[in-house]
Amino acid sequence: MKFTCPKDELVQAVQIVSKAVSSKPQMPILSGIYLNATNNTLELQATDYEIGITCKIDAQIDEPGAIVLSGRYFQEVTRRLPGENVEIISNRADQTVKISSNTAEFNLLSLPANEFPTVQQLTGNITFQIRDNIFRDLIKKTVFACSTDEARPVFTGCLLEVNNSDVVMVATNTHRLSIKREILDDFTGNIKIIIPSKILNELTKIMISEIPSNVTVNCSYNQISFAFDNVYITSRLIEGQFPDYQRVIPPEFNTKIKINTHAFQSAVDRVSLISRAGDYNIIQLIFTENKVVITSNNPDIGKAEESVPVSIEGPEIDIAFNAKYVTDILKNIESEIFYFSLNKSLTPANIKPSDDDTYNYIVTPVRTNS
Amino acid sequence: MKFTCPKDELVQAVQIVSKAVSSKPQMPILSGIYLNATNNTLELQATDYEIGITCKIDAQIDEPGAIVLSGRYFQEVTRRLPGENVEIISNRADQTVKISSNTAEFNLLSLPANEFPTVQQLTGNITFQIRDNIFRDLIKKTVFACSTDEARPVFTGCLLEVNNSDVVMVATNTHRLSIKREILDDFTGNIKIIIPSKILNELTKIMISEIPSNVTVNCSYNQISFAFDNVYITSRLIEGQFPDYQRVIPPEFNTKIKINTHAFQSAVDRVSLISRAGDYNIIQLIFTENKVVITSNNPDIGKAEESVPVSIEGPEIDIAFNAKYVTDILKNIESEIFYFSLNKSLTPANIKPSDDDTYNYIVTPVRTNS
Repeated sequence: MKFTCPKDELVQAVQIVSKAVSSKPQMPILSGIYLNATNNTLELQATDYEIGITCKIDAQIDEPGAIVLSGRYFQEVTRRLPGENVEIISNRADQTVKISSNTAEFNLLSLPANEFPTVQQLTGNITFQIRDNIFRDLIKKTVFACSTDEARPVFTGCLLEVNNSDVVMVATNTHRLSIKREILDDFTGNIKIIIPSKILNELTKIMISEIPSNVTVNCSYNQISFAFDNVYITSRLIEGQFPDYQRVIPPEFNTKIKINTHAFQSAVDRVSLISRAGDYNIIQLIFTENKVVITSNNPDIGKAEESVPVSIEGPEIDIAFNAKYVTDILKNIESEIFYFSLNKSLTPANIKPSDDDTYNYIVTPVRTNS
Repeated sequence: MKFTCPKDELVQAVQIVSKAVSSKPQMPILSGIYLNATNNTLELQATDYEIGITCKIDAQIDEPGAIVLSGRYFQEVTRRLPGENVEIISNRADQTVKISSNTAEFNLLSLPANEFPTVQQLTGNITFQIRDNIFRDLIKKTVFACSTDEARPVFTGCLLEVNNSDVVMVATNTHRLSIKREILDDFTGNIKIIIPSKILNELTKIMISEIPSNVTVNCSYNQISFAFDNVYITSRLIEGQFPDYQRVIPPEFNTKIKINTHAFQSAVDRVSLISRAGDYNIIQLIFTENKVVITSNNPDIGKAEESVPVSIEGPEIDIAFNAKYVTDILKNIESEIFYFSLNKSLTPANIKPSDDDTYNYIVTPVRTNS
């Protein structure tokens, strides 16, 4: 194998596929990045069996071939190469790969390419296209609400439900639920799958093109693939039944409150300085006619109190929440004003931006002794 | 106690004294910051018995008094206060302190001020003044060479030696030695003390005024104090005999090499990517007529090689070093060119900037099998 390619493109491709290199690989070969040089294209691959990522870049191929290099060292070496171009030559005799750029030359030990479980093209029977900026927004506004508890796998992923052109993404850890809806340009069919939060988080880091482009999504019963630009990603899906999230959404609310997002978020951030050290990070919200008083209390540290102006429709109410479940959603609300809708002190509440009916967040209050 | 002060000044003062709050305090009171409000001045103090820091700011004192607050929470709370001013009132009845700023109000539990071991003014018999920028430079160019091994305390600090107007700071971990000399404006006397690296590192973070100002240094046989701006710092000194560093400096060198600092540093950084994973981080340097070839080798990863042009006077030489001991000094050399002076493959070498005869670094090579 022998090829030359621009350093910056190689570095970017290595960085993308590195996200599928496991830090604790099941087998030594999975700690590697697979390089395949053919037809003026260099293909890079990495997989941890759950996720597989392929990235292609243009290269001048002088001798086709395939090789596997340590993901960690290949990434560190390429990132620091001094030149504009990189030449990579494999030496079959001593099983090394020479990486040269300007005055620098590295000879890295290689692993046999034929042992690498290459990423297979998924040929599921459902395919649709979605704009990457819309897809990123669906992910960003829901994935934070997932659980990290692997004992209940369905909650560690986001539900993606498509009914013809309506697409909705939903995540919950059973204490809070985040729902974001969008419209697909052109799709007829039904999809209901649970995508692992891990690959969704990685996607938001990889899909960062400034010009919106299309992502082609393909699903089988237990796998999903995403294709965009020069990148192809596959992931397993989570099996199991996602709970009926529609049932969790209260049909109506007694008290509707209008609040300045930034003012409320800053106040909750400050007040929760005191509660954060405790086990449950509980803040108390006392909504009255024209303000909400936010308090927290930790017998070992002290108390905090802050008030924010609100406008309220309906009865006054006292309610308590895990502060993190409130700030997590506020970080994702871009509108200046948001609505907080409540029934009773122990029934689920709703938080949503004032300017976006497609985004909804349900959060369960906590019981306090006071 | 009751006072009001500008938030930003309070935050800065808290941040400065926090550097003396131990993360693992010997006694609960040492986890606190001591506040003393008298005569339109708020004094803050913290100490871990090794270091003591005092910082004073102007405040409007309505009721004098002293109190101790949790260092961690007082710092976190003040940093996030929403207003321009802060009002602090102690409540003797429930032993809390009310911190108010704009709409936010915190009530932190307090600790009894009379239990706090307040920082005492040092009255040693030696005093001198030094410009803070000169002092910072002395520290920065030597302190990195200290050892972190507490088993041999003298090597965990920097030697400060003053002979009339000549001041020199020296640090070594026995494998490398860094020496920086300066001239004091006005001092007659002799000082030879070992200052702990910890307080020197903290000083470089606190002495950050943009306008050069004087630091007043006072020493007793086992303590030192630094006074500048509104800050007063005391520290213990390290007892013991610092080795005779003059004896370590070779009187002459057979081979003198002139190298571009940035080019050499970048090359060593890259080559040591391979050696860094090993126990000793060894790079080999082969100096020939017009270049140095830098190589490293790790049987588990591979090899690296890079060459940098040099001009050489004297015999060619092969030599090996711990790469970190080379890059550490290069980071502190500001001149475009540096001199590398060598005798034999196993005798100490010298590194120094081309434009500063007051800065010298001695590094011991390592023996390699090759």
